[in-house]
Amino acid sequence: MRETEFLQALHFNAVRGGDGSLVNMSVPIVLALDDAQRRAIQADGATAVALVDAHDRPVAVLSDIEIYKHNKEERIARTWGTTARGLPYVEEAITNAGDWLIGGDLEVIEPIKYNDGLDQYRLSPAQLREEFARRNADAVFAFQLRNPVHNGHALLMTDTRRRLLEMGYKNPVLLLHPLGGFTKADDVPLSVRMKQHEKVLEEGVLNPESTVVAIFPSPMHYAGPTEVQWHAKARINAGANFYIVGRDPAGMGHPTEKRDLYDADHGKKVLSMAPGLERLNILPFKVAAYDTKHNKMNFFDPSRKEDFLFISGTKMRSLAKNRESPPDGFMCPGGWKVLVEYYDSLAPPEGSSKLREAVAA
Amino acid sequence: MRETEFLQALHFNAVRGGDGSLVNMSVPIVLALDDAQRRAIQADGATAVALVDAHDRPVAVLSDIEIYKHNKEERIARTWGTTARGLPYVEEAITNAGDWLIGGDLEVIEPIKYNDGLDQYRLSPAQLREEFARRNADAVFAFQLRNPVHNGHALLMTDTRRRLLEMGYKNPVLLLHPLGGFTKADDVPLSVRMKQHEKVLEEGVLNPESTVVAIFPSPMHYAGPTEVQWHAKARINAGANFYIVGRDPAGMGHPTEKRDLYDADHGKKVLSMAPGLERLNILPFKVAAYDTKHNKMNFFDPSRKEDFLFISGTKMRSLAKNRESPPDGFMCPGGWKVLVEYYDSLAPPEGSSKLREAVAA
Repeated sequence: MRETEFLQALHFNAVRGGDGSLVNMSVPIVLALDDAQRRAIQADGATAVALVDAHDRPVAVLSDIEIYKHNKEERIARTWGTTARGLPYVEEAITNAGDWLIGGDLEVIEPIKYNDGLDQYRLSPAQLREEFARRNADAVFAFQLRNPVHNGHALLMTDTRRRLLEMGYKNPVLLLHPLGGFTKADDVPLSVRMKQHEKVLEEGVLNPESTVVAIFPSPMHYAGPTEVQWHAKARINAGANFYIVGRDPAGMGHPTEKRDLYDADHGKKVLSMAPGLERLNILPFKVAAYDTKHNKMNFFDPSRKEDFLFISGTKMRSLAKNRESPPDGFMCPGGWKVLVEYYDSLAPPEGSSKLREAVAA
Repeated sequence: MRETEFLQALHFNAVRGGDGSLVNMSVPIVLALDDAQRRAIQADGATAVALVDAHDRPVAVLSDIEIYKHNKEERIARTWGTTARGLPYVEEAITNAGDWLIGGDLEVIEPIKYNDGLDQYRLSPAQLREEFARRNADAVFAFQLRNPVHNGHALLMTDTRRRLLEMGYKNPVLLLHPLGGFTKADDVPLSVRMKQHEKVLEEGVLNPESTVVAIFPSPMHYAGPTEVQWHAKARINAGANFYIVGRDPAGMGHPTEKRDLYDADHGKKVLSMAPGLERLNILPFKVAAYDTKHNKMNFFDPSRKEDFLFISGTKMRSLAKNRESPPDGFMCPGGWKVLVEYYDSLAPPEGSSKLREAVAA
């Protein structure tokens, strides 16, 4: 991003397009430079730079470059609404980053490959739109996730499809779009989650005919109402017109205080009002929980709340780590096995993280 | 403000109007309640509350009320881009405020009177628009200030009028609009500034025929690029279509680090891109300084920079405090006398504030 875009992202969560319309953009996408890198570029009088991967192979060219100050405190405060220490993405990517940012016109040489056995899932927005057209989808509903899919998630995805059919759509297609970038240490790694998602489709919990699985390459910011806009906007770019949003999306516990960082309702509210997302159809999550009377995940019924068991992501991971079984019907057996095998492979078992995680239904 | 407006102000610096258009609103205007006040309202089952002044006289009614959480940390971080201790408005109005906010439909019973001898300057936006119509203004240019007017300010206001006449306007009128609410301790108080502004008009430094002086009742937030939008938007509401903006508007020194809180260019940049301010004409400040060769305030000429003396607000106050005279031509004599008399009246002399102030040209 150039500085004008960076400032618009921070102040307005939207940047103005060439035609004067506002395009939602709530998290800045920037590249930091340290003093030495900046000096090297400036000493060279370069107007363009090559961006290289971890093996020093050029992957993109940034031309007509601009270098500007990286005010980290302001970036963090305006993106997260706090500057407390312990924000996972801040510690991963900002605190130790350089004090300068570089922007320009970006040209990617060829699609980025990770060579991790998952590249077939890394579809560009254009490829996803093509896939939806190939399937003759007349509605696309997106589900953002960074956790294994349990039957509560599956219930609300299949229920969403049912509702769209009732609304008159003939062929609603689900974009199951797990986040593929940085996640905090106690989240399940991408490769394990992808194996788990494969099982969920193999075992028919989700219907492969009406589901497209792809990796969303973004890092997780855990920036709540700010980040949920990016999660939705990126899926609109990829062809989705319905977005499923839950309680406290992209939220987490406050890193230094005993409370959630964000109000659980703010994500949905902010998303519904965000500039540049006017055409987005938001599908609020219904809350699903384990129904001990029917031994399956079910929509929570407040009239018989004593029958329901809430199993958070943290609880789910702790069961899998301790080789305990979740109640029958919580997750398909093949998917659960993937998780247990993953935690078995970790020796010694990971300590529990001090980061509390929002309860995903 | 209701919570939906509060969230939009914090995240987007703009709220969506009834017709779907975005109205700029960068600082939330909210009323805090403490736990006891909230309990009293809720115990009463009230749907409306009276707002009272310092003498318990009702001044307004808030109906169809809504009470929501006052997340101070998030409000501060998203408004100021920092949560460092020592932000003047935060300490004045937020830190010790209640943990709840109340919003609703506001009806003001009658225009608020301060009874401080300055009420004749407190013109509503509607009254200001009427005044500009009465004067047959075909352009209105606004100047935000919280400092005494020196001849550098006057130069750029008269030069702005000259430029507008050159652009073909027949009767450009200046709205000289000093801020009348909270300012930090080392700023000159409103009553003194108003006396000083009167002298500036009496002595013909500004032309009373083409100048309207009124008080802008807002408190000063010192929130830089976020606040400058509010400063401009409020003047548009009052009939201005040109807004003069300088270096680091509404900025100050970082309260805990040795640097300015905001980049000096960000205010102008953010203002020029702000949603809801598309029709605003921004007139960038030229930098004026004391020209020692011509013994007057002049636009800075970099080709002979050694001739120029920059006199900051802090320096100006320190001269007046110490009964030293500024160079001839820096400020009209009557205006300077007002300042000297004010500082004389303070006994013992005020210590210098640790807050550094941006240099206003």
